[in-house]
Amino acid sequence: MFVSRPAVQPVEAPSPVNAAENPPRLRMKDIQGMPGTAGGLALRLSQFGLAVAALGVMESTSNFGFVTVFCYLIAAAITQSLWSISLAFLDIYALLVKRCLRNPRALCIFTIGDGIISTLTFSAACASAGITILLRGNGSICSHEHCTSFETAIAIAFISWFVICPSFLLNFWQLASS
Amino acid sequence: MFVSRPAVQPVEAPSPVNAAENPPRLRMKDIQGMPGTAGGLALRLSQFGLAVAALGVMESTSNFGFVTVFCYLIAAAITQSLWSISLAFLDIYALLVKRCLRNPRALCIFTIGDGIISTLTFSAACASAGITILLRGNGSICSHEHCTSFETAIAIAFISWFVICPSFLLNFWQLASS
Repeated sequence: MFVSRPAVQPVEAPSPVNAAENPPRLRMKDIQGMPGTAGGLALRLSQFGLAVAALGVMESTSNFGFVTVFCYLIAAAITQSLWSISLAFLDIYALLVKRCLRNPRALCIFTIGDGIISTLTFSAACASAGITILLRGNGSICSHEHCTSFETAIAIAFISWFVICPSFLLNFWQLASS
Repeated sequence: MFVSRPAVQPVEAPSPVNAAENPPRLRMKDIQGMPGTAGGLALRLSQFGLAVAALGVMESTSNFGFVTVFCYLIAAAITQSLWSISLAFLDIYALLVKRCLRNPRALCIFTIGDGIISTLTFSAACASAGITILLRGNGSICSHEHCTSFETAIAIAFISWFVICPSFLLNFWQLASS
């Protein structure tokens, strides 16, 4: 007998309805915070709100311009607010038309964008914090330069960085596991 | 006829030799830079060398202690050098005994550690850079305080952050795809 005898196993015939419902690349559940979810929209709106708050507090001190790094913090806050509100609108659109935003190309753009924006915000907040610590050491300068307002703006910028980090990590996780 | 008729497909019977050679969790190729590879060891040794160089340059200026943030940069450089040399030894061990360091628990520890250390180094470098920009603005202070040495140390700290980032991203990618 030269007939081949492969081992056979019964498998369920795939139904076309199930195949359409389960796209092949979806390996992860819809974790809240990912693009196109209500949690993701909440994160984006929080990032936008915090960036605008940091910008407002820093702008409220008339003489922030005497330190270059404070201007950098303002530029970072403006960039973050524009990025976050754009993605918030995209999330609203995805929620309204029930579309999934998690194709690899979109995820790659979101991840790179979040990485750059979070690095920008964090670096601006750290540099400003370093300067404020130095100004605090010189009491006479600090009382004149509204150090409390600077510190508040920097604290808000740090919180906004904390809020953008989950977006970056979730997008990167989703990209790696797709 | 009430006999069930499942669809059947021929499958190859798995041989025990192949199963032992291919561990089930290995989904990604051995990308150089991951733990337990020669590239990973090179990254760790670079991180260690750069952290020690930043530390050495900053310590060479006798009066770095007048700014708190410069002391923070030194603390960050010490922490990074200790972390990187520990993982370099682990990589050497893994390469010598040909063991894979990529089980999920180890990857989780490496990722969290790299994330914390890179954030620490980056924040210290940014804060120090902010202060150095301020000191440069005041020429009389800067010439006295060895600004060039400070700037060199900060630049090396930034490069060491650039070198620790690939370790973090590769570990996180591997963790997500495992």
